[in-house]
Amino acid sequence: MEQYGFLGLGIMGSAMAKNLLKAGFKVTVWNRSQEKCAEFAALGATVAATPAEVTSSCSVTIAMLADPAAAHAVCFGPEGALEGIGAGRGYVDMSTVDAATAQEIGAAVTGKGGRFLEAPVSGSKKPAEDGTLIILAAGDRGLFDQALPLFEKMGKKSLYLGEVGRGAQMKLIVNMVMGGMMTIFCEGLALADKAGLECSDLLDVIDAGAMANPMFKLKGAQIGQENFATAFPLKHMQKDMRLAVALGDQLGQPLFSASAANESFKRARSQGFSDQDFSAVFKAIAS
Amino acid sequence: MEQYGFLGLGIMGSAMAKNLLKAGFKVTVWNRSQEKCAEFAALGATVAATPAEVTSSCSVTIAMLADPAAAHAVCFGPEGALEGIGAGRGYVDMSTVDAATAQEIGAAVTGKGGRFLEAPVSGSKKPAEDGTLIILAAGDRGLFDQALPLFEKMGKKSLYLGEVGRGAQMKLIVNMVMGGMMTIFCEGLALADKAGLECSDLLDVIDAGAMANPMFKLKGAQIGQENFATAFPLKHMQKDMRLAVALGDQLGQPLFSASAANESFKRARSQGFSDQDFSAVFKAIAS
Amino acid sequence: MEQYGFLGLGIMGSAMAKNLLKAGFKVTVWNRSQEKCAEFAALGATVAATPAEVTSSCSVTIAMLADPAAAHAVCFGPEGALEGIGAGRGYVDMSTVDAATAQEIGAAVTGKGGRFLEAPVSGSKKPAEDGTLIILAAGDRGLFDQALPLFEKMGKKSLYLGEVGRGAQMKLIVNMVMGGMMTIFCEGLALADKAGLECSDLLDVIDAGAMANPMFKLKGAQIGQENFATAFPLKHMQKDMRLAVALGDQLGQPLFSASAANESFKRARSQGFSDQDFSAVFKAIAS
Amino acid sequence: MEQYGFLGLGIMGSAMAKNLLKAGFKVTVWNRSQEKCAEFAALGATVAATPAEVTSSCSVTIAMLADPAAAHAVCFGPEGALEGIGAGRGYVDMSTVDAATAQEIGAAVTGKGGRFLEAPVSGSKKPAEDGTLIILAAGDRGLFDQALPLFEKMGKKSLYLGEVGRGAQMKLIVNMVMGGMMTIFCEGLALADKAGLECSDLLDVIDAGAMANPMFKLKGAQIGQENFATAFPLKHMQKDMRLAVALGDQLGQPLFSASAANESFKRARSQGFSDQDFSAVFKAIAS
Repeated sequence: MEQYGFLGLGIMGSAMAKNLLKAGFKVTVWNRSQEKCAEFAALGATVAATPAEVTSSCSVTIAMLADPAAAHAVCFGPEGALEGIGAGRGYVDMSTVDAATAQEIGAAVTGKGGRFLEAPVSGSKKPAEDGTLIILAAGDRGLFDQALPLFEKMGKKSLYLGEVGRGAQMKLIVNMVMGGMMTIFCEGLALADKAGLECSDLLDVIDAGAMANPMFKLKGAQIGQENFATAFPLKHMQKDMRLAVALGDQLGQPLFSASAANESFKRARSQGFSDQDFSAVFKAIAS
Repeated sequence: MEQYGFLGLGIMGSAMAKNLLKAGFKVTVWNRSQEKCAEFAALGATVAATPAEVTSSCSVTIAMLADPAAAHAVCFGPEGALEGIGAGRGYVDMSTVDAATAQEIGAAVTGKGGRFLEAPVSGSKKPAEDGTLIILAAGDRGLFDQALPLFEKMGKKSLYLGEVGRGAQMKLIVNMVMGGMMTIFCEGLALADKAGLECSDLLDVIDAGAMANPMFKLKGAQIGQENFATAFPLKHMQKDMRLAVALGDQLGQPLFSASAANESFKRARSQGFSDQDFSAVFKAIAS
Repeated sequence: MEQYGFLGLGIMGSAMAKNLLKAGFKVTVWNRSQEKCAEFAALGATVAATPAEVTSSCSVTIAMLADPAAAHAVCFGPEGALEGIGAGRGYVDMSTVDAATAQEIGAAVTGKGGRFLEAPVSGSKKPAEDGTLIILAAGDRGLFDQALPLFEKMGKKSLYLGEVGRGAQMKLIVNMVMGGMMTIFCEGLALADKAGLECSDLLDVIDAGAMANPMFKLKGAQIGQENFATAFPLKHMQKDMRLAVALGDQLGQPLFSASAANESFKRARSQGFSDQDFSAVFKAIAS
Repeated sequence: MEQYGFLGLGIMGSAMAKNLLKAGFKVTVWNRSQEKCAEFAALGATVAATPAEVTSSCSVTIAMLADPAAAHAVCFGPEGALEGIGAGRGYVDMSTVDAATAQEIGAAVTGKGGRFLEAPVSGSKKPAEDGTLIILAAGDRGLFDQALPLFEKMGKKSLYLGEVGRGAQMKLIVNMVMGGMMTIFCEGLALADKAGLECSDLLDVIDAGAMANPMFKLKGAQIGQENFATAFPLKHMQKDMRLAVALGDQLGQPLFSASAANESFKRARSQGFSDQDFSAVFKAIAS
């Protein structure tokens, strides 16, 4: 039976790795702080001391790191993932990184004879736990097919999007739409409130019609309770809006709505809501 | 058995009146062009020659006119609805009008001893036919309760929102959110296209996640086919965006996202897409 | 020698009427609160008890009222200006009103055989005192020519723009450009401040180049001193931005920059700066 | 007498270098394409074959290159400026570069014992020829004092702004204000035109009031003649708007007006006006 590697056991990574172990896959794990690994050993995982140890001993290694800097460091650092990559080995980076970082890692991996797939996900903590992420893969098609049985335990939908970079771009665009939906939704809630309407009535009306969606239902109720517990940090949403607007710049696509939404997220950031949920943009809009 | 009146047999009104007749209610109808009425006589409706004839012979009369001007004319014109209003008679205006028109009609009706309810709807042709409209009622609470059995045949959800004017405001806010969602969605589709991504992939990803909603699913597919057949005319959406922004002005609520969306709809209007579906804003965004 | 009428002795009106008196014109004045008139009697003015008394005794009457409601009331109210209008008499409304109010007053005046000119001004208290207003006239061309000697004492430039309504539109557009210049200027100042640059250096650089203008020079220095003493009230600027955006709506001209500026002025208004100078939008932008 | 170096004889650089020669300074020039140098030899300049030859033979060398890439290459390339930098030699980079490039060049120069000043300019071809540029210097204070006699022949105003990076930031902010002014101005012109007003009347009114500025006067007349001959290319303005918005992002300053203006420049770019004057944003706004 195949041995799979998993680098990064943060909120997302640990939920995803557990789903692989639960499904019966043989997994070697590594995490920057080793304490996290004990729990996984108890679930049957092999524990490695360095990223290189993982990649050199597994046919396919998945990385799920916090940000582009971490993804870069785990790959290129001393005893990093790249050192263990050899001919034919697969490296699947599921971290959310920009296209340039994905391309740099991809080029390094293929330069050593390995195969590379970027596979950022749409969905946060809950879908990671439930195995209902949406996986946006791009790069080596054969590696995508090989990783599909694992993807199917971590996500409910996996798309293969073409050359490296397209996974990151798709994710940016999806998040841009999400951010724009959130700002217009919050403007609606703030306006209803100022008009003396019940926000719960607005939520009911929206939920009964063609716009009904789980995000408005969940976040609308939470905003009503002034609950901004972080599922997706506002600063990350603002960063994605910024990058999406920059992508529009690069491709010559004007984005008036996205850039207005971006400025609202910036205002929320400058008002101190960076680490709250991205729905906290409501406070910047309503104030 | 109670006799109910119905004024206006346009696209919306005729579908709604048919649902009342199908449900077994006794209905007297009137329409500006009388030819439309024959079809309803065949379904068992009584046909009246003037609005006044309807209101004077029915305990509750529903009006569903094309716009504020028509709603105003049918009420206040010669042999208009107001002439037939007597003590205790109910007038339910389901047309989409501004708060000022609703208040003017309401004051006139109650001035003659009648009772008034504004009840604009959310939903267009298909929900009108299917009896799945969302009804946003405000005004006389007793009349709301009395009209509820009729509302239940025309809509799937009926809200009572308080004093006259709030129905119109709720509808504006709902449409504002809808317009804002459409512009950010179209920006996402246009950006994906310029990035060389398949729009169908973007639709799949959105549809698999927390943003999934019937509007994106339906309109996304139609935009992909360059089908802008009119369900909700773009010029009406732009008018609602404008009125919602004006409501924000009146109430002191800044609306950066809504006003950016409004300008995109204006651009679409100035490019000649006024009478196409509001999703035709895509063409103004992508060009 | 011709007798001229002057209705309205507020901040603007009193400065303008004084310039006429100083130039030797024979002027009959009226003001809603009569106490204001004593000062003008001392300067040689005739004082009238009602607007009608003014218009019936003067060949040309100038009105300078606070807003459209006041302009309307002084014209149409009991013993109002309209009552004294007879064949050939001229009525020059220099108040800032919307096109509809100007047209209504104009039609009433010409309906009684009088001649009408709308002539809103660009410039506030200081230019009114200095006789350096810019006068945007539209309507009766002969009346324009007749009023020109008076205009030349109140303003430094007088334009004849055509049919009634165009004066108001020109003023709106000019104020829209002014409001938009102010928001981008304030964004520049706020950004410079956050970057650790001296705002006075930014002002110096702008003042040395092709963008140099008296408004930036004056307002920039005042903003640096947190001096928002009212020359042009923020709420009036926001109203003009709103009307300009509405004009764009009516004419099919998208105005992305103007509408973003409008929302910033709205935010300033909702933060309580309505009655401060319009440069107080800086506080809404920098906070 | 001191020998000064000058690298880069493009549109800007050649005008600036000529002003130095005219003023009697001893100048050694270098340009990538050597043909350009003949003209300067005729004016008394020494011609060098490489940037290193210039920096090694001059106490202070000025660089005026087309963009960050060129500024980088001329400094770090083979036989580049850096090779000739020795203890105490001054390097004044007047190219428009981002803060990061300025800092990289500055660090390299000081690393070799040299002194560094960034000194981007505000103003384009005409002010360069007339010696009326505005010079935004930052870095080594002593070098600023030493270069001041040269600055005074190239510009009419020279500011010392502090540490390296602040010159580039000031220039970005100034250009951001300029871009925002241009978009609201063009919206005003487009709206006036749609309203049937003469654009020349709008220009006259603006020019008579507190907003009067040379840019509106010059560009307004040119726009009226559909003359978009390039003084400052639209693509460079859009790049500066983008960088300014990014600076706001970094510093937590929301910039709703600047980002709306940026999107209008992007639209103009995507419509093919990249290489025309930045006033060509009018065509994207009016269409």
